[in-house]
Amino acid sequence: MSAQDVVHALKARGETVATAESLTAGLVTAELTSVPGSSAVVRGGLVVYATDLKHTLAGVDAALLAEHGAVHPEVARQLAEGARERCGATWGLGLTGVAGPDPQDGVPPGTVHIGLSGPSGSTVETLTLGGDRDEVRKSSTTAVLDLLLDHLKIPVE
Amino acid sequence: MSAQDVVHALKARGETVATAESLTAGLVTAELTSVPGSSAVVRGGLVVYATDLKHTLAGVDAALLAEHGAVHPEVARQLAEGARERCGATWGLGLTGVAGPDPQDGVPPGTVHIGLSGPSGSTVETLTLGGDRDEVRKSSTTAVLDLLLDHLKIPVE
Repeated sequence: MSAQDVVHALKARGETVATAESLTAGLVTAELTSVPGSSAVVRGGLVVYATDLKHTLAGVDAALLAEHGAVHPEVARQLAEGARERCGATWGLGLTGVAGPDPQDGVPPGTVHIGLSGPSGSTVETLTLGGDRDEVRKSSTTAVLDLLLDHLKIPVE
Repeated sequence: MSAQDVVHALKARGETVATAESLTAGLVTAELTSVPGSSAVVRGGLVVYATDLKHTLAGVDAALLAEHGAVHPEVARQLAEGARERCGATWGLGLTGVAGPDPQDGVPPGTVHIGLSGPSGSTVETLTLGGDRDEVRKSSTTAVLDLLLDHLKIPVE
């Protein structure tokens, strides 16, 4: 129950979270808000499925998208930062990757970049996930919630 | 399988869809994008869980929110219009309501307003749904996809 753990940890810290999701397209935010009382800590999110929305809604550098495509670690980082800034949250989560069944921009299904932005900066992890479209999306959701949870274990300064 | 029907109908018409979700918080967009190939028709969406994001991200009138709260038919209409405009889609879907378990702004759980905005204008329906938090969110998702599907049966002019 990563979502419940995240909501409880954020409540205890008096902090909030927002998202910018591509391949998961709302799954992360839906999972977080499945927890009753989550409105105290979930600000909202940006579902940036089309590549151009990653720039217009979340502020990802247009030149980066043009040069490397949408599935790139730096895109995940900028999505996380954009979510945090544009939704006014303590923490921002960003996800981009290929759910499948077909490759995208030459990148095979199961390649996923997850970004986290917080008060002390940002970080990105790259995952290589197995399974079908549904499994890749669910595993990505769990992974980004676990990434946030790891950071919420660090005491507030 | 409303989502699959919606994706296929949009593809056949060469049209696109975007969302602005409150109580469902990404479920509608996640459901639409569970269909392989949906990237051709799903632009993206705004998850406006916090009331102030309904104004800043989706352009809902701040005075309307201040006077009537977030759970109001006109808010659903403006969410649909905001989704359509800000995500550049043919159709916009907007949802606001109370998933529960607690009332919000004096409105009981299960009260949900769903909005649809399209080339010919916008419409709103008000639902009174039974069930727990999870059921209210799922029923709202199905209802808004069915509302769109009804409009996609009308021949393109």
